[in-house]
Amino acid sequence: MHSTLLPSVFPWKKDYHKRDIPADALASVIVTILLIPQSLAYAMLAGLPAQMGLYASILPLLAYAVFGSSRVLAVGPVAIISLLTASTISQYTGEQAIQAAMLLAAISGALLVLMGLLRLGWFASLLSHAVMSGFIFGSALLIALGQLKHFLGFPLAGHTLPDMLNSFVHNHSAFSSLALVLGLASLGLLILSRQYASALLKRCGVSEHNAELFGKAGPIVVIVIAILLVKFLGLDQQGLSIVASIPAGLPDLQLPEFNGPLARDLFPAALMISLIGFVESVSVAQSLAAKRRQRIEPDQELLGLGAANMAAACSGAYPVTGGFARSVVSFDAGALSPMAGVFTAIGIAMTCLFLTPLFYYLPHATLAATIIVAVSSLLDWHSIRDTWRVSKVDFIALITTLSLVLLQGVETGIFAGVAISLALHLWKTSRPHIAEVGLMPGTQHFRNKDRHSVICSGAVLSARVDESLYFANIRYLEDKLYAEAISREGVEHVVLMCSAINSIDYSALEGLESLNQRLHHAGIRFHLSEVKGPVMDQLQKSRFLQSLSGQVFLSQYQAFNQLCNELDATLTPRI
Amino acid sequence: MHSTLLPSVFPWKKDYHKRDIPADALASVIVTILLIPQSLAYAMLAGLPAQMGLYASILPLLAYAVFGSSRVLAVGPVAIISLLTASTISQYTGEQAIQAAMLLAAISGALLVLMGLLRLGWFASLLSHAVMSGFIFGSALLIALGQLKHFLGFPLAGHTLPDMLNSFVHNHSAFSSLALVLGLASLGLLILSRQYASALLKRCGVSEHNAELFGKAGPIVVIVIAILLVKFLGLDQQGLSIVASIPAGLPDLQLPEFNGPLARDLFPAALMISLIGFVESVSVAQSLAAKRRQRIEPDQELLGLGAANMAAACSGAYPVTGGFARSVVSFDAGALSPMAGVFTAIGIAMTCLFLTPLFYYLPHATLAATIIVAVSSLLDWHSIRDTWRVSKVDFIALITTLSLVLLQGVETGIFAGVAISLALHLWKTSRPHIAEVGLMPGTQHFRNKDRHSVICSGAVLSARVDESLYFANIRYLEDKLYAEAISREGVEHVVLMCSAINSIDYSALEGLESLNQRLHHAGIRFHLSEVKGPVMDQLQKSRFLQSLSGQVFLSQYQAFNQLCNELDATLTPRI
Repeated sequence: MHSTLLPSVFPWKKDYHKRDIPADALASVIVTILLIPQSLAYAMLAGLPAQMGLYASILPLLAYAVFGSSRVLAVGPVAIISLLTASTISQYTGEQAIQAAMLLAAISGALLVLMGLLRLGWFASLLSHAVMSGFIFGSALLIALGQLKHFLGFPLAGHTLPDMLNSFVHNHSAFSSLALVLGLASLGLLILSRQYASALLKRCGVSEHNAELFGKAGPIVVIVIAILLVKFLGLDQQGLSIVASIPAGLPDLQLPEFNGPLARDLFPAALMISLIGFVESVSVAQSLAAKRRQRIEPDQELLGLGAANMAAACSGAYPVTGGFARSVVSFDAGALSPMAGVFTAIGIAMTCLFLTPLFYYLPHATLAATIIVAVSSLLDWHSIRDTWRVSKVDFIALITTLSLVLLQGVETGIFAGVAISLALHLWKTSRPHIAEVGLMPGTQHFRNKDRHSVICSGAVLSARVDESLYFANIRYLEDKLYAEAISREGVEHVVLMCSAINSIDYSALEGLESLNQRLHHAGIRFHLSEVKGPVMDQLQKSRFLQSLSGQVFLSQYQAFNQLCNELDATLTPRI
Repeated sequence: MHSTLLPSVFPWKKDYHKRDIPADALASVIVTILLIPQSLAYAMLAGLPAQMGLYASILPLLAYAVFGSSRVLAVGPVAIISLLTASTISQYTGEQAIQAAMLLAAISGALLVLMGLLRLGWFASLLSHAVMSGFIFGSALLIALGQLKHFLGFPLAGHTLPDMLNSFVHNHSAFSSLALVLGLASLGLLILSRQYASALLKRCGVSEHNAELFGKAGPIVVIVIAILLVKFLGLDQQGLSIVASIPAGLPDLQLPEFNGPLARDLFPAALMISLIGFVESVSVAQSLAAKRRQRIEPDQELLGLGAANMAAACSGAYPVTGGFARSVVSFDAGALSPMAGVFTAIGIAMTCLFLTPLFYYLPHATLAATIIVAVSSLLDWHSIRDTWRVSKVDFIALITTLSLVLLQGVETGIFAGVAISLALHLWKTSRPHIAEVGLMPGTQHFRNKDRHSVICSGAVLSARVDESLYFANIRYLEDKLYAEAISREGVEHVVLMCSAINSIDYSALEGLESLNQRLHHAGIRFHLSEVKGPVMDQLQKSRFLQSLSGQVFLSQYQAFNQLCNELDATLTPRI
């Protein structure tokens, strides 16, 4: 493990060979074709001008190529982060919204870099699998429903289910059937192309691999058809909403205006965007890296994504992260290194310079259809069902996050999800399994007396706790053990078998000390057995061992044997 | 363990005998004598009229006697809760402040009862020992410093160190030496009486036990002296601040006015008051109960304290909880049951009816001195030093809480303390100890290869993780193990020894599945060994076992043996 705090630059460079260039260049062509409609659509989803989506696909890709550790992660605007951006900047309009989006990227980038330098990638672990599942499912649903406005031809304001419903009720009289027909047609074509495009290409004699790959280019074909339709039928004259003119040229390099109060407002959203973007990127990057027996360095990944977001902030774009679909396409197309990202950036830059007039007649309804198709794969019912089957506690966290995302919005949803999964974790570990153990006849093993027929003594109470001891569970243990000891007649010794205790904190030490005191006052001696090395180190640093009324035994067998002999008690076998 | 959700009424009644009455009555006399000055002083500390402190010592004691489970806990106004009340209601004045204090007691009481009925006492475990130490130390310091205003004779506004300092700088010209002289004299007398009163009584022929007990009545003597001095020297005419007239009579029974926005504002403070009051009461009650081989039931205790606070809310008082000093006095005086509390309540009620005129000339400076002496015992330097010695992580939590209490106030301090101790706990468990293990020659045991000379195989990587797996640490394990496996030449099998894993959550299952996938792609098979019963149950409920590329072995020895045989690999001994 390297421990330097200095970031690596071009971490992938040492393994790079010139002969990889053609593969990267080819992959970049396909990614560019996929990225153009996505960039335009996600900018619309974020509530920002179309060119900001394109800008988010230029400089951030170059920055990621310099600092990122994944060889195939394709960075750029993605659906979930666009939704988060939309809900964060929804209170601003026009130039203010653009500045807020850039500042959001700047803060996210700074947070990611900071976490990378301080090796705080573990922070993302707070987003448990259940919370992420609930969050992604809820967000995808919100995104898909939000796109309906482009089908219906009237505004659907708000970023929660109740707000959207309310907006629907108030605005539905403005319904336009033209947008709906075009939107549904686009949706149908996209779904068909997704299912049959590669089969069709194969039948036309394209090799299987290439057919699979170029089948992914369906969206651009649908977009071209839609543009031609609108242009030649003059549908925009009939009130159809279109992208209209996108300023040509490369983005200006400029820092977002810094504004203290605005930055403070944006901070929670920026933190969330950093963490969610990081978690998503890392899981995509890791699964792809494994297929080539490579690995990615999460802390370096933070720097890569941080640099990408800072580049976004300086080039008129909005927050970016690694995209799942496009990384898979890039990987399948044979991309070998982040050079593919560099080539993709050049492709998008060319688009900005020369191709923007082509998108003038692109209808918003078609873009909405591409978004709906893209996020539909995020509606993962299986994951919800599996969570239910495996763990009811995790299911509660998932459903809470999902419901709050829908009802209260993405920010509340994710923060409540994290809070509830922490609380549930503490609750679970705060009531550890405590078993009274006895000697298995003819062995030196001690087992749960409820499950095995073991030998117990009325005067020696032996208990095993199956959890590390810390502030959230020590009171429970203290109370249970004390209650058990004093509720029985004739208990003179309590032995706590510590074989499952991996660690112990200061509160737990105080708790054991208090248990020892309380038992002592009640005339009962307290002993420990099978204490692990690191736990013994902790005990030795405290006063606990001095005040302990009993002993620390190496094994439970030794404890039981010696105490029973001392008592000269007759062993009472129990079935 | 009883599992009913219905509260017990008079839980101590079945063990009560008429012959206990004299002992309880005697103890109550001493507690009453101690409680009168404390009630007046703590009401002053809370920024409320003096009678509210007396009221807090009547009905709440009766309510606790009905529902409480401790036989000797003496309930009433206490220093820390008074400080919390003061800082919460500081923005209100006059009748508004009184209403806010009553509402605070009502909400606290409702929360406590709710937690009791839902068996949520474990919630208090969030207040780790380190956080409580830091909180109590900081609060005691704030209380003591805040009392200086009564010595200096000018107002010291604010509930944080910087605010007080600021107030000092602005108001110090109003300094009055009369208050200072009287305050210091009271302080000196109190300290002397604390140290020498019992010795003096013993010399006068009082029995040792009674001398110890009546020595605690020092404050009432000092107060009587101060009252006489003020009255006969006419010190109040010279600007000395006195208690003045306290309305005589019993409190009116009335509910506090309910006010939605106010209730919302008070909620966080009420939650904190409930939890802190509960933690403090339970620890006092438990340590005293143990001395008589009794125990208290924490969930029943929640009901008792909840009822006490609701009674406070209905009788013109403010939040109460169990007091340390007075419970110890009651215990030492031989109180046997909560009937002692009933008698104390009668004593304080008599005081309200007939004795309030006596306190007219009581100077605030003397009350301030009794507060300073009372809280000085809470300044527990040893606890800070011990925490430092035993655990640096807990020390960080303690110091953070302490500093924030002083600098930002009690609420911020305690919430930040809880947050940081949770974060530190997660951080600790998020980087579990992972050891590569090998076979101890001549045994079937596997030990850490860095500590023992063991037999390892180049093709079989065996690792043991010393922590339960959950969302906060699974990514770390996944990453470490994968990195280790692919960084070595020739690894064909990875065996995770699960003997220290007590539980596993859904995120951890997903993580293991992802690790299995990644290793599989890299041509490495993944195995588990020594899986505990409950963990195996979890695994069986998921798809993990179906997708596992390797096997689940009963023992690490079996795993190692079989895999090495399969490979027909030569064992490479390492030192």
